[in-house]
Amino acid sequence: MALVVQKFGGSSLATPERVISAARRAIAQFQAGNQVVVVCSAQGDQTDQLINLAQQIHERPSPRELDMLKAVGEQMSIALMAIAIHKLAHEAISLTGAQAGIRTDSFHGKAKIKRIDTRRLQQELARGQIVIVAGFQGVDSEDNITTIGRGGSDPTAVALAAALGAERCDIFTDVDGVYTADPRIVPEARWIPRMDYDELLELSSLGAKVMQSRAVELAKRFGVALRVRSSFSDSEGTLVTDLSGEMEYVDVRAAALDLNEAKITIRHVPDQPGVAATIFSEIARANVNVDVIVQNVSERGLADVSFTVMKEDRLLALDVARGLAEKLGASGVESDENTAKVSVIGIGMRSHSGVAERMFRALADEQINILMISTSEIKISCVIEAPNGERALRAVHRAFQLDKDNSDRT
Amino acid sequence: MALVVQKFGGSSLATPERVISAARRAIAQFQAGNQVVVVCSAQGDQTDQLINLAQQIHERPSPRELDMLKAVGEQMSIALMAIAIHKLAHEAISLTGAQAGIRTDSFHGKAKIKRIDTRRLQQELARGQIVIVAGFQGVDSEDNITTIGRGGSDPTAVALAAALGAERCDIFTDVDGVYTADPRIVPEARWIPRMDYDELLELSSLGAKVMQSRAVELAKRFGVALRVRSSFSDSEGTLVTDLSGEMEYVDVRAAALDLNEAKITIRHVPDQPGVAATIFSEIARANVNVDVIVQNVSERGLADVSFTVMKEDRLLALDVARGLAEKLGASGVESDENTAKVSVIGIGMRSHSGVAERMFRALADEQINILMISTSEIKISCVIEAPNGERALRAVHRAFQLDKDNSDRT
Repeated sequence: MALVVQKFGGSSLATPERVISAARRAIAQFQAGNQVVVVCSAQGDQTDQLINLAQQIHERPSPRELDMLKAVGEQMSIALMAIAIHKLAHEAISLTGAQAGIRTDSFHGKAKIKRIDTRRLQQELARGQIVIVAGFQGVDSEDNITTIGRGGSDPTAVALAAALGAERCDIFTDVDGVYTADPRIVPEARWIPRMDYDELLELSSLGAKVMQSRAVELAKRFGVALRVRSSFSDSEGTLVTDLSGEMEYVDVRAAALDLNEAKITIRHVPDQPGVAATIFSEIARANVNVDVIVQNVSERGLADVSFTVMKEDRLLALDVARGLAEKLGASGVESDENTAKVSVIGIGMRSHSGVAERMFRALADEQINILMISTSEIKISCVIEAPNGERALRAVHRAFQLDKDNSDRT
Repeated sequence: MALVVQKFGGSSLATPERVISAARRAIAQFQAGNQVVVVCSAQGDQTDQLINLAQQIHERPSPRELDMLKAVGEQMSIALMAIAIHKLAHEAISLTGAQAGIRTDSFHGKAKIKRIDTRRLQQELARGQIVIVAGFQGVDSEDNITTIGRGGSDPTAVALAAALGAERCDIFTDVDGVYTADPRIVPEARWIPRMDYDELLELSSLGAKVMQSRAVELAKRFGVALRVRSSFSDSEGTLVTDLSGEMEYVDVRAAALDLNEAKITIRHVPDQPGVAATIFSEIARANVNVDVIVQNVSERGLADVSFTVMKEDRLLALDVARGLAEKLGASGVESDENTAKVSVIGIGMRSHSGVAERMFRALADEQINILMISTSEIKISCVIEAPNGERALRAVHRAFQLDKDNSDRT
């Protein structure tokens, strides 16, 4: 008997009707002869409402207590989902993160899953129950409730699928799969039937809000097949697996635009060995994720070091950068929120050349200036000025003919 | 160092301002040199809102899943209370029922506390924390979340006070102590400074919504001193302890009116030994609490058996009674929701005679007909017709001179 994990996001559970509709999907899998584990996020924008409640009392609530409060959202969802399945005359039982054996570290608000003790889960599955698990939460070694960070129900679902040896993990969301670009910006964007983990990974870190990177990484590491699909339609969604062994005719699978980055520059840093290490280890210590990094050596052994961070981390990163500038004898620090990042991704790039050239040409043809460039084996990103963002995305999408049907070529 | 348990009810925590005001009371106890454990109910009418959410999906949600859902209310309260204490620059940590070691049986929705494993509590108290515990909830032997029934934060507080050897358990509520009668019905009712467990116990089961009986029973059994006081004033409240050893000049301490009873009569039951046992064991099996019981033997070896139950149990009790009537060969079953019960209570009755007579006289003087009578060592109750209820309460209150200051006589 195969096991399928289904994860429902907040919008998929926002109303009683939607909870019941999600319950039907769980039952359909069960009736198809599978064991079913359902992972639920908090309903709608409840997590934000809970944070707001706390902030009415304290602007900066303690992370432990905020986790205690936020965990409530998923606990409500799982109870309601179990009740909905009962209403539809099937057996179901809900389990909190703690009850489902999800053990994490103690980093409240950003905890990582360390292991899953699946005994209770196995036991309930063996009893013929559809098992509903609260996403986003676990407990640390002292049984304190932790949360796994924003969007943290995806990692929960994938980790459960891995721990239970699931055949597939269905991620139900409000989009009906992954597209070659955001259709709100690029109307001719196309649905992608299959893609590789690495491609989704790059896309997820590029502002295409399909899935959390951590969840995709986990899926890749444990070989969990993901299907990203819509709660609101019967489209088959996008199947995400390891395609690296397959013949591949597609160089670029998708393009993306990320408007959530801010650029920070430290001017005139003495260009000595170890300076970059000093800078970025200090920034990492502040728990700020750095994306693109560019270092230009200018005259007299001085370098400008620029990097991008998520906008919400900008002030924190600026603080750290200013301290560093003083310590290193740099001349100053600047920041720019008015940037965008346009990217193309595709594992086919590994075996196709000329992709970077084509991208730069597409931007140049639109008279769009490139501020920073970052490349990986399967991705090219250009940081540009924000007002050019959407135009750049459309130009790049066109240049790689992503609007053409290529499903027969995958 | 003494330990004080403070319990705050839903209305005492209904807004952020009230949570902060409750936090100040906890801190004041802590600053007075005590260890402090705070027990919180769900905010305002949140429990009802949660039940309503479930019922939008299923009219009769499973008790286990309803407990999973309801437990959320107290979890929110404890997190917010801890955050409020932090805001006021003191240390505090919140614990769910599970984390606080509150182990119950598995009777979802009406669970009973079996034991409290105080290790975590002791550890946090020793660290100098004000410890906030979720009322109303615990976990069974399989770690399923249970709730302790309506008003169940009171038993939690008392059980914690007993388990931790607390000096006192303060029950903060929206009344500033116990009164000789409900002041909304009897304007001349007086505040009672001290009373005995048994008196509060009788009052609580008589519709005076001061505290849950179970909590008072627990307090009596473990000798936990209770103080019932207001969250909204600095009045000292009513201290509830064992007064049975004291010289006692008060015969009646208080009077109460209960409008939440329905009367059920089984007509013409064969009057044989064991019939009452059959009837009331069957009703107990349906988990219906019976209050007053009257059996009148009529002609030809037939008896009428009448009893009262809480109104919400009426339909269930009627079902059982009808089944019994058929089985026993009784002639039929009647029920009457239009009843009220007026009572006087006081441990002084044990040593004073003539209390019953005075009460019946007071009702007779008002031309109020008595339908059923029930007496205990410290209580006399008369079931009457509901429209006479308030007038009866005032008459009895006057007859026992409860409106006169008797604080110097206690």
